Amino acid sequence: MKLYDCATAPSPRRVRIYLAEKGLDIPVIQVDLASRAQHDDEFLQINPHRTVPVLETDDGARLVSTAGICQYLEQLHPEPPLIGRTALERGQVIDLDSRIEFEGMHAIAEAFRNKARSYANNALTGPHPYAQIPQLVDRGRERVGHFFEWLNEHLADREFVAGDHYSIADISALVAVDFSAWIKMSPPEGATEIARWHQQVSARPSAKA
Amino acid sequence: MKLYDCATAPSPRRVRIYLAEKGLDIPVIQVDLASRAQHDDEFLQINPHRTVPVLETDDGARLVSTAGICQYLEQLHPEPPLIGRTALERGQVIDLDSRIEFEGMHAIAEAFRNKARSYANNALTGPHPYAQIPQLVDRGRERVGHFFEWLNEHLADREFVAGDHYSIADISALVAVDFSAWIKMSPPEGATEIARWHQQVSARPSAKA
Repeated sequence: MKLYDCATAPSPRRVRIYLAEKGLDIPVIQVDLASRAQHDDEFLQINPHRTVPVLETDDGARLVSTAGICQYLEQLHPEPPLIGRTALERGQVIDLDSRIEFEGMHAIAEAFRNKARSYANNALTGPHPYAQIPQLVDRGRERVGHFFEWLNEHLADREFVAGDHYSIADISALVAVDFSAWIKMSPPEGATEIARWHQQVSARPSAKA
Repeated sequence: MKLYDCATAPSPRRVRIYLAEKGLDIPVIQVDLASRAQHDDEFLQINPHRTVPVLETDDGARLVSTAGICQYLEQLHPEPPLIGRTALERGQVIDLDSRIEFEGMHAIAEAFRNKARSYANNALTGPHPYAQIPQLVDRGRERVGHFFEWLNEHLADREFVAGDHYSIADISALVAVDFSAWIKMSPPEGATEIARWHQQVSARPSAKA
């Protein structure tokens, strides 16, 4: 098994943290997004959709979404459970993870990619050259503000995002909060619940992954 | 268990088809999105995020995403498997389902919600009044065109979206293709693989759900 990664990018960091929490150590191949290596012919053979992470199995099958990669690994390595311990918890973790993906990660990416000069004709991931839409910068930032409001309120009566146990929803939320620095945002000062939780999950060794 | 549904809406249709494929029959409560019932106080107690589907368990727990609902039900009712039969298949089905969600469903919703007069300050789901951005109508349509191209090519050497067995990826793709009629789009005439597959999955009794 091997992982196509980019050490500086938020999406593959979700998989790196997941692997660290599971105690899995697999070979990593760096794809330098900063030098646009995801558009090189060599990488197009790996993932025509031009994104990392990509997990390649020993049989050469490839998984290209964080959700798909984590679900696959969870079946092979169920301990410690990171996608719920029961059917209901699994549903709840995936519910929360989907929300963080869309309202956190996508919103930050929207604000970032529609502004950064180097993404001028690359406002969405993938092979197609979508132009930037300046209004999405403000909309993305507004969405991120609402995401922080929700997350702070949500964490008020929960130790972790999905309740009393650490899960992929914590990984996604941690990566989203840290990714928000790319658009010069951070949880507001009054967001004490996020601050408490962020300190706790950032102190886990996996957060360095 | 019960399902908060809207008979005319695409997202809850994914869950209805899933239930039909599993042979599960659960009570359904209609939430009339056309009359904005998702914004009523009564429904806000059910789902403050104002979306359907919502699956409520007998213990009163609620799941609010298609992915979370299907993963929960899959644990309780594994047969017939609709999220893969092996770890790798599970990862692959979720990979494809994520792609169809983002590049199909979201793209169609983008084109639809940024144009329809009744969504004037409701361009994104949820409680916040995001204004429409006219440029997203064209971008959404362009994305849907690329989605159809990808889907047709992808189906060229596969009976079903995830290979040789029907899965939630077929459900999502079927609902996305049918949802594209809302923006007056459909797969192009030359998309013979989509046509063959669409006819096949539409002929299953579950497609009427």
